[in-house]
Amino acid sequence: MSIPLSIKWDGKQLVVLDQQKLPHEIVYIKLEALKDVYEAIITLKVRGAPAIGITAAYGLAIEAQGYKTNSMIDFLALLKKDATYLGESRPTAVNLVWALDRLLTVVSLVDSVSDAKQILIEEAIVIHKEDEESCRNIGEFGLSLLGDKTKVMTICNAGSIATAKYGTALAPFHLGKELGKEFEVFACETRPLFQGGRLTVWELQQSGVDVTLITDSMAAHTISAKGIEAIIVGADRIAKNGDTANKIGTLNLAILAFVYGIPFYVAAPSSTFDLSINNGVEIPIEERKAEEITHINGKSIALSNTKVFNPAFDVTPAKYITAIITEKGIIYPDYCDNISAQLANSIEKEKNNEN
Amino acid sequence: MSIPLSIKWDGKQLVVLDQQKLPHEIVYIKLEALKDVYEAIITLKVRGAPAIGITAAYGLAIEAQGYKTNSMIDFLALLKKDATYLGESRPTAVNLVWALDRLLTVVSLVDSVSDAKQILIEEAIVIHKEDEESCRNIGEFGLSLLGDKTKVMTICNAGSIATAKYGTALAPFHLGKELGKEFEVFACETRPLFQGGRLTVWELQQSGVDVTLITDSMAAHTISAKGIEAIIVGADRIAKNGDTANKIGTLNLAILAFVYGIPFYVAAPSSTFDLSINNGVEIPIEERKAEEITHINGKSIALSNTKVFNPAFDVTPAKYITAIITEKGIIYPDYCDNISAQLANSIEKEKNNEN
Repeated sequence: MSIPLSIKWDGKQLVVLDQQKLPHEIVYIKLEALKDVYEAIITLKVRGAPAIGITAAYGLAIEAQGYKTNSMIDFLALLKKDATYLGESRPTAVNLVWALDRLLTVVSLVDSVSDAKQILIEEAIVIHKEDEESCRNIGEFGLSLLGDKTKVMTICNAGSIATAKYGTALAPFHLGKELGKEFEVFACETRPLFQGGRLTVWELQQSGVDVTLITDSMAAHTISAKGIEAIIVGADRIAKNGDTANKIGTLNLAILAFVYGIPFYVAAPSSTFDLSINNGVEIPIEERKAEEITHINGKSIALSNTKVFNPAFDVTPAKYITAIITEKGIIYPDYCDNISAQLANSIEKEKNNEN
Repeated sequence: MSIPLSIKWDGKQLVVLDQQKLPHEIVYIKLEALKDVYEAIITLKVRGAPAIGITAAYGLAIEAQGYKTNSMIDFLALLKKDATYLGESRPTAVNLVWALDRLLTVVSLVDSVSDAKQILIEEAIVIHKEDEESCRNIGEFGLSLLGDKTKVMTICNAGSIATAKYGTALAPFHLGKELGKEFEVFACETRPLFQGGRLTVWELQQSGVDVTLITDSMAAHTISAKGIEAIIVGADRIAKNGDTANKIGTLNLAILAFVYGIPFYVAAPSSTFDLSINNGVEIPIEERKAEEITHINGKSIALSNTKVFNPAFDVTPAKYITAIITEKGIIYPDYCDNISAQLANSIEKEKNNEN
């Protein structure tokens, strides 16, 4: 048993796990050109913001190997055009544009096309490695926070396959397994798209972690009946005051944790913070199509003309969050001060390292 | 548009709505013999404790019309045998055995087989009418409690099709429609079996009530985003202290109502109280098979070997229940005193009526 990886790079070839086929088929597909990468992202074969960023970085670097020019001006023009094209595959994934921008920046440091081709590949590898290290750090901080607690609930898939390795919310479970700690994880199925049932259960099974599937509606009873000791979730975006947008259903769990007096942890890389947003009220909530709820596997549950409310995520107020686990450390309330302080501190450290 | 009925009796024939085909097909099936009724109950074509009781009463009465004997002793022996057989079709439905017992009791009051045959039919009709009246009362009390509130959330199907008419938790919406009050109902889909999406949405649509489907995981966000003003649910069993067993997911909603400061109402006929049970801890929770969660419409979501926890219902502590609506009136806390008082009062009233 081993932690499943969604992206593999052997120095020549990029292969990614087709997450659309999970859990029934484990299929890795080879991505040889930019259009393959674009297609893999747009059809959700690759999902999870960090995994999308890494895949896009490799995709752009691979495509650039084939540019038939010795002019850096032409090279950069081609690179920018392809980066723009790829950046449109999943407009809401922050890491996608961030990763492509890193490649555009690094290539500006070299003078020749051959150096540019090499540095692009190298930078993609760095992005890949950095994410794995970031997730491992989150896992270690998460393990220290969880301490003796072993019965933990989660929702959606903030997992290894959404990142380079380990994941965010699932990182403590994978790392715990490596270090000999046995968790008992309860995974909410995560309606409407079942990322919990389809992905998290499979991923933790692959890693040998004891995982039990429940419906989202069973959370309260399960906390009480099974003695759940903590809840840990990922995040899509975290505001300046700690309010956290994540997969719909997260808010339910946060409120249950509050009422049952168990800790509620958010695990996310520091790139998830959006300090331009003061609080959760300012985070727009995407509403998705009715068919996601009325239809499953192409078959309808409710009638097609049914009126549906289908928000893709919800915002958990900071007051329900016990701590936020990042790759740089654990942030406790008061978040308004402590988030800014940790991010500033990190920026300070990075500057010192550069000196 | 009209309130859908699950049981129709025209003086000669019993037809019931095949709830397994909902919402895609509206099919009424004729039940002509005891075995038809048994089959309809065991295959969940008829569901909902009151509806099962009514159907069983008609079924036994219809079967008895064909007994070829003039001996009351033989008649009673046949009747008892058939009642026992039918009573085993759904052992957990309290109303089933209760309805059959009523028929056995009433038939003991007459001396001839022809009178017995007649009184059995009459008693089935009384049981049917009483349930409709009971549900209508619950609807009226519910309407008075809801007052000006129009945005209400519910779970599962405590509806017209689970009873003679109107339902329990859904009774205020149907009755409100009849009386010109426009509700905006949010129905939780109710995993794992989708009674909310399949049945409640369809039932309220038939009645012309404005209903919106959400997944169970969207409850917290919906309460906040849509300004839900109250939550109303049915009940499977209510303990002496008010602790209420109902469909899994009910407890989640009760806790959310508590945290958001909106009322949480339980609507159920007084037959739902089980005074032999002191509190919710004593209520056993049925666990059902994993396939209900891992498979939908015969297709699998998670792998078949997935470890699953599948409790069929949960227990909401009385402290989260704002009021219990019965056909005899509204019961407020302290439930330990007030439930016993109302039931005793009702028994007293019934005794006075008999005098």
